[in-house]
Amino acid sequence: MLDDLRDLSAIGGRPDGGVDRVAGSPADLEARAWLGRRLEAAGMQARTDEVNNVFGRAAAGSAPWLLTGSHTDTVPAGGRLDGAFGVIAALEAARTLVESRADAASNVEIVSFHDEEGVTGGGGLSGSRALLRGPHAAEIGAYLEIHIEQGPVLESEGLELGVVEGIVGIRRLDVVFEGEANHAGTTPYEARHDAGAAAGRLTSELRDLLRGIEATMVGNVGVIRFEPGSPNVVPGRASLVVEVRSLANRSLDRACEAVRVAAERAAAASGCTVKVDPGLTIEPVRMDAGIVDTLVRVCERSGRPWKRMSSGAGHDAGAMATRVPAGMLFVPSHRGVSHSPLEHTDDALLVGGCQALLDGIVEVASGL
Amino acid sequence: MLDDLRDLSAIGGRPDGGVDRVAGSPADLEARAWLGRRLEAAGMQARTDEVNNVFGRAAAGSAPWLLTGSHTDTVPAGGRLDGAFGVIAALEAARTLVESRADAASNVEIVSFHDEEGVTGGGGLSGSRALLRGPHAAEIGAYLEIHIEQGPVLESEGLELGVVEGIVGIRRLDVVFEGEANHAGTTPYEARHDAGAAAGRLTSELRDLLRGIEATMVGNVGVIRFEPGSPNVVPGRASLVVEVRSLANRSLDRACEAVRVAAERAAAASGCTVKVDPGLTIEPVRMDAGIVDTLVRVCERSGRPWKRMSSGAGHDAGAMATRVPAGMLFVPSHRGVSHSPLEHTDDALLVGGCQALLDGIVEVASGL
Repeated sequence: MLDDLRDLSAIGGRPDGGVDRVAGSPADLEARAWLGRRLEAAGMQARTDEVNNVFGRAAAGSAPWLLTGSHTDTVPAGGRLDGAFGVIAALEAARTLVESRADAASNVEIVSFHDEEGVTGGGGLSGSRALLRGPHAAEIGAYLEIHIEQGPVLESEGLELGVVEGIVGIRRLDVVFEGEANHAGTTPYEARHDAGAAAGRLTSELRDLLRGIEATMVGNVGVIRFEPGSPNVVPGRASLVVEVRSLANRSLDRACEAVRVAAERAAAASGCTVKVDPGLTIEPVRMDAGIVDTLVRVCERSGRPWKRMSSGAGHDAGAMATRVPAGMLFVPSHRGVSHSPLEHTDDALLVGGCQALLDGIVEVASGL
Repeated sequence: MLDDLRDLSAIGGRPDGGVDRVAGSPADLEARAWLGRRLEAAGMQARTDEVNNVFGRAAAGSAPWLLTGSHTDTVPAGGRLDGAFGVIAALEAARTLVESRADAASNVEIVSFHDEEGVTGGGGLSGSRALLRGPHAAEIGAYLEIHIEQGPVLESEGLELGVVEGIVGIRRLDVVFEGEANHAGTTPYEARHDAGAAAGRLTSELRDLLRGIEATMVGNVGVIRFEPGSPNVVPGRASLVVEVRSLANRSLDRACEAVRVAAERAAAASGCTVKVDPGLTIEPVRMDAGIVDTLVRVCERSGRPWKRMSSGAGHDAGAMATRVPAGMLFVPSHRGVSHSPLEHTDDALLVGGCQALLDGIVEVASGL
């Protein structure tokens, strides 16, 4: 498995240790062809569908399939593990099942989905979403994926495995404070309608707002803009995008309402008005409860320290879970870094994760 | 005077009542030629110097000159009064002195300075600064200017005249918070280094910081930028420009120090570091104490309600005051609006201001 990971990381590999394998690029296509050859070498039949998803399965196998994998495309200047680890771990698990002539071998199908990262537009998950629109979806009995956490939680708590209970939903709010642009020298504070001060206040308050709703939910203000945008003009308009994430729709509802109330309060304090409009909405997705229980048992048996957790990032498993019983495992990300050449997980943790995926596949496949 | 103001506002006039007479534009040059003709018609000799300053004086006059005026250039989509009122009021005052054969007539020189607004770069006040570099500066005994306030103070306090004691100094601080860009979904709050939250906090705190230093000093955050600038990425860097203004260097010093301390505190609270670098610095300028006293007497005699105040905006009088005893009067700006087609001051207030300027000229000229 580690050899395969190393070979795959050389396709589109960068001198800094990162990988450029953007969906549809020559490196991406080369990696998919390479994967096909590795699947064949493991005794499986490989095929590529019309959207560039690569599949592999035992020639003598039959539906319902336990689909397992992830994606081999990367963001520009990405890392060697995001997506790739899930595909190679699935390949290794299937190879083990084939070599040991296990019953599960005839029901396991490997996948590398097209453009999980979304560089071709549409918000990512293109390959898994396309699969769900086609006839093959009806032949899939379960989906399992292992992925690096892309966050610091497992490492910081000294854990080796995470059982993902769901993928958080996202709500974005487009917040626009309207005040009055004024000369910053001649307008006393009492006469101002400072949209920037209101936006600053909301930005600085967000964390405390969310803390009161759910201990682990997160939010972000990643985009802010003052207009007209001159050092000597009081901002007449300030726009920001507030994002909140949680696995619970109730928390998302409460967070959006809290942001709205805080925005009104900040506007009033600065003599402004405010509009809060819903932007992007992504519903939370729950992994299948039965598969989660199975993965929990696998982790407990492994003797490795683990925890239940939600995923703050989107994954193909989130798309699959809308139609198919799905489950997901995490391994730690060193310092939580991903989408970067600095992405790293120790080999021993990767191997442990792959073993847990294999054990999960055997258990889930036996119940199909 | 009102007829001249109306005729001047037609040069570069906009359908919305505003004026486009940017320095160096055909409309600006046409206005300067028109002013030359109006000066000649008033019995004065007009000349244009090498940087496009227009002057007018009595043929029989002699140094030391009491220079009075302002500028006829505007910002793009400016108003009909900013600068223009000071030039036309000076023209009217000189015309009155010439017509009444007053002694002061032989010492008064009218000026319309080039590019006060700074569209040609260099921060504005080009014409007055150029004058100070040339030999004519030594022939000027005093400078008087009347201008719209460009702020709401006089109107909101029911006053008709302001005696300007000085022009506030400006200090800009370039503040850069450095944190760590992270995935906004997978990074728990405890693991973040959110430069945006720190910048938001400093932005929202500025007003209270300054209130503790000086009751009437003002500041502004008009420019802010989060990087990488994506809704789903915790800002790794946040830059803002903090501007503070006061007539007292001691207040400016204390304000800069308070901003620095607050920036450090905001950075620490968000797990970031911060750099605070001095940017633009403009020294406060005091008007001549004797001329201020003279203008105070003029205002008191006028029976019109007035106050002493500082100017939050820059003016040619600020440049002149660095070399020549200078004084300045304000008339109210309706709603404090300037640099806009909506700029307005009632005719009666303009006439009252012109009368005060005339009275001031007579008093100051008698002491030259």
